[in-house]
Amino acid sequence: MTSPGPRGDLFSPDCPTRRLLDRIGTKWMSMAVKVLAEASPDELRFAELRRRMPGVSQKMLSVTLQGMVRDGLAARRVEPTVPPRVHYRLTPLGLSLDGPLAAVRAWAEEHMAEVDRANAADG
Amino acid sequence: MTSPGPRGDLFSPDCPTRRLLDRIGTKWMSMAVKVLAEASPDELRFAELRRRMPGVSQKMLSVTLQGMVRDGLAARRVEPTVPPRVHYRLTPLGLSLDGPLAAVRAWAEEHMAEVDRANAADG
Repeated sequence: MTSPGPRGDLFSPDCPTRRLLDRIGTKWMSMAVKVLAEASPDELRFAELRRRMPGVSQKMLSVTLQGMVRDGLAARRVEPTVPPRVHYRLTPLGLSLDGPLAAVRAWAEEHMAEVDRANAADG
Repeated sequence: MTSPGPRGDLFSPDCPTRRLLDRIGTKWMSMAVKVLAEASPDELRFAELRRRMPGVSQKMLSVTLQGMVRDGLAARRVEPTVPPRVHYRLTPLGLSLDGPLAAVRAWAEEHMAEVDRANAADG
């Protein structure tokens, strides 16, 4: 459980929004939200999700999804097969995050060439 | 220098956009962009920037700003005093990132209560 803490001041060290930014800002969470939003309202199995996010380790994907479930962004369903199949989908809250994250991804795609040139000039 | 790599596939492990997302997604970069955008077109000294970002360590702020300068998001100016004064401002490229990051911050502020409730229920 997270203590509510002071609201409205992003620049207070214990501002909850700031703690949240730490999580939603990660590359893997941004990618998991995108992949799950594309599949929505269908679920995706862990293995399928991993296949659609090349380069993610099993551990990193697990940690990312655990955080998303804890934060109410994703829902997890375990199918009692042997071995159990684990399915994930975005909640409405998680779906609402896709737009803002897509804006950041779009910026990155649009401006990547400029960033590359800056890196080359600096190198 | 960063090699250009393949474009347009966020899900390729060496997609440059994905590498960029790793950096622009961080909490400290998001905060530094906000603080510098608010000061823009004025510069801010390192110490003043640090004062406006409570909780950031000298090291983390240095690393964040170095990355922003390398990526062409911020410009650094050293005033040859003793000791030298270092000033930072956003470039037009850096300013263009403030809008997308503000959308993510606004989402976090708007939905923080829901995330808190999910955490409490999960705890």
